[in-house]
Amino acid sequence: MTTADEAFAALDALLGARLNRSQSDRELHGRSEADWPLMPPDAVAYPETTAEVSQIVQICAAAGLPIIGWGAGTSLEGHAIAPRGGVTVDFSRMNRVIEIAAEDMLVTVQPGITREALNTELRATGLFFPVDPGANASIGGMASTRASGTTAVRYGTMRANVLGLEVVLADGRIIRTGTRAPKSSTGYDLTALFVGAEGTLGLITELTLKLHGQPEAIRSAVCAFDDMSGAVNAVIATIQSGIPMARIEFVDAAGAAVFNAMSGTEWPDLPHLMIEFHGSEQGVAEQTERFAEIATDFGAQGFRWAEKPEDRTALWAMRHNTYRAGMQAHPGRDPLTTDICVPISRLAEAVEETAAEIAASGIPGPMVGHVGDGNFHALLLPTSGDAAEHEKAAQLAANMAKRALRLGGTVSGEHGIGMGKLKYMDQEHGPAWGVMGEIKKALDPDGLMNPGKLLPGN
Amino acid sequence: MTTADEAFAALDALLGARLNRSQSDRELHGRSEADWPLMPPDAVAYPETTAEVSQIVQICAAAGLPIIGWGAGTSLEGHAIAPRGGVTVDFSRMNRVIEIAAEDMLVTVQPGITREALNTELRATGLFFPVDPGANASIGGMASTRASGTTAVRYGTMRANVLGLEVVLADGRIIRTGTRAPKSSTGYDLTALFVGAEGTLGLITELTLKLHGQPEAIRSAVCAFDDMSGAVNAVIATIQSGIPMARIEFVDAAGAAVFNAMSGTEWPDLPHLMIEFHGSEQGVAEQTERFAEIATDFGAQGFRWAEKPEDRTALWAMRHNTYRAGMQAHPGRDPLTTDICVPISRLAEAVEETAAEIAASGIPGPMVGHVGDGNFHALLLPTSGDAAEHEKAAQLAANMAKRALRLGGTVSGEHGIGMGKLKYMDQEHGPAWGVMGEIKKALDPDGLMNPGKLLPGN
Repeated sequence: MTTADEAFAALDALLGARLNRSQSDRELHGRSEADWPLMPPDAVAYPETTAEVSQIVQICAAAGLPIIGWGAGTSLEGHAIAPRGGVTVDFSRMNRVIEIAAEDMLVTVQPGITREALNTELRATGLFFPVDPGANASIGGMASTRASGTTAVRYGTMRANVLGLEVVLADGRIIRTGTRAPKSSTGYDLTALFVGAEGTLGLITELTLKLHGQPEAIRSAVCAFDDMSGAVNAVIATIQSGIPMARIEFVDAAGAAVFNAMSGTEWPDLPHLMIEFHGSEQGVAEQTERFAEIATDFGAQGFRWAEKPEDRTALWAMRHNTYRAGMQAHPGRDPLTTDICVPISRLAEAVEETAAEIAASGIPGPMVGHVGDGNFHALLLPTSGDAAEHEKAAQLAANMAKRALRLGGTVSGEHGIGMGKLKYMDQEHGPAWGVMGEIKKALDPDGLMNPGKLLPGN
Repeated sequence: MTTADEAFAALDALLGARLNRSQSDRELHGRSEADWPLMPPDAVAYPETTAEVSQIVQICAAAGLPIIGWGAGTSLEGHAIAPRGGVTVDFSRMNRVIEIAAEDMLVTVQPGITREALNTELRATGLFFPVDPGANASIGGMASTRASGTTAVRYGTMRANVLGLEVVLADGRIIRTGTRAPKSSTGYDLTALFVGAEGTLGLITELTLKLHGQPEAIRSAVCAFDDMSGAVNAVIATIQSGIPMARIEFVDAAGAAVFNAMSGTEWPDLPHLMIEFHGSEQGVAEQTERFAEIATDFGAQGFRWAEKPEDRTALWAMRHNTYRAGMQAHPGRDPLTTDICVPISRLAEAVEETAAEIAASGIPGPMVGHVGDGNFHALLLPTSGDAAEHEKAAQLAANMAKRALRLGGTVSGEHGIGMGKLKYMDQEHGPAWGVMGEIKKALDPDGLMNPGKLLPGN
């Protein structure tokens, strides 16, 4: 066992100026996009290679210092802040595309690259990486939280799109999971174990991702509904009829108002669906026609089709900026954003109950959702400094989580657990949560990898 | 610690006639579909409930007796035989559909139901379960070996189609993984950990599976190619052009001859592709037309379209019976079947090298494959009782495994490891294999769940 001071000296020797112990940098890495108290690490390390990451982990392990991975800092449940101090490993200098294997529709990247930077690099290949959480998150962070986004209904979440990993374990060992073959049945699915582990089992230092061909044709649309159940039931009917939607997003009336305020659109004061189809020209034409028929049966009105690429880009940029738009439309308020995910058959019920409860609370709370996955979000906006409103917002979020469990769903479809949803893990998983703890103990016996998150005993 | 005799007495008391220690039943459960020496368990248990499975496991654990799960006995790498004796848990009496949730496109089943029985039960719902390894395997076994089959190119393997599990752990604890929501990011993906674990971490006692809508239109075809690389390159080009194939199977000239001998077809002495499209009438028409154009560019000839349902059924039944047909066409020979999976870009190379080596060996070895996944099989047929030919066949299989690794692939795309491919695990996974061992040790410290399979130290 070495002391913390010895560890920092060793890290200094290893990284030089790439070890930062300044208050400003520590505080930058002690804050989350969501409304968490400041919890800074003792130091921030900026490795450039996997070998350096392994050495950092070994040095920290010898001194019993916590090790926290950091991508873009956009997680929402306090995943990457440092409640017990330690060393935050910031992957911003490990942000390269290592190899594009276009023939195999694969790309190998370092964890610090963001999804937008990756797609920019892929532009010339005719391929793209589809997973798109709202934020321009890092790919390593997206894998660690098992992120999804608007396109998961068609292309799957990070679970489906990570083919293999390089991981530095809690003792500094470097392992590789998966191969470049499209599938395998050779032993435990370690790739799936590390995807969604929130950095509690190791640090991801390299990822091989599945790519998809840019569709020949894309068509997007927005339409309004008289009520939420009409919108949700139109989605259910579309899924069941097998029409392959590339994106299908729900926006409630409060969300529409937020979009109008930020983007100058003139959406009516009603629930909306935003939809996109990918395919051949002929396929997309058929799908849009069939969707319009179904949606009209459920009361859809005022279809606006985005035909030009720039119109589509504007549409989805608006959707991805919901969080910022909500805050701008409601100045003087703090954001509390939460997500739940329920079986499709219970989605209308879940959305309607939640909307009614938010309306009754008097707190602004626009809702948006990846409804094709049964997943929706509320952006609750209590008045800054008003403790009673904050308490009420927290209660609304808690009721959403309980509602998800009551309806056979999960307390998070894509944001993850971090520190924010630890309190629901036992109720969602029962004794399976204990099994997660046993796996953690086997691979990180000293509990140094991102402590305080996800697992029992925290 | 109790003695083995005490354990059998306790099992007797628990199960009565549903504990079978007869030599015939033990031998039945000591044999595999593949050519393995007889390795019978000491007893075969036929539980009817999860509670009984938990009690069986607790009784065996107290006596240090191995516990081996048994589905339909169709695995190919000795997964379910008992090299160290113990108690085989045969799930044939736990074969019910527990619940069809048609609106959520989910079904919950017991592990002993076979894929064909499940689809028969689903027939009236308009939904189906797509994963189809050749054999009529049990769903529990398919999950445990992470099986796939002809439709994985479109619908995914068991990895993508199991949403949640109930599992009895090595100490008898009963856990549930997953929820009924389509996705979740709440902790370690235990579902993915147990899928493919080959019964070494616990016994699966219940599965919730994703279903898919029966397509409005289906069209199948067979066509021949002058050479293997033409066939394989046609598949690569089709994938890259984004045409959604539901099935795409390669059959080499030797495989075509086997089909002709069994089914009275008159396929030319050439490599073939068997293909199927699922979708709307219009979509399928477009896809078949585009595929035919691409395939013709690569030398496809003699397209035969199966328009009627019975013609399609006959076509795929023939494909699924390759194993039996191969043995019938070559009497007096033993089957050694093996599979590998490589990146799509290396598939032509892998298939051609393998075919050349088999041809040079003089041993019959028809090849078939799920080429859309980069996965193909050889059914090697050495003469019964000819030790030199058996040795040569084993060497051909070993060379295939090494070839897969050299080309960036995996030693098994869908058959799994069992005992047959243990020898390649270190080479494929390196130190990650050790991590599998650490997880095993955490969840089954006494090594009683299906010992001798998959893991290091065996």
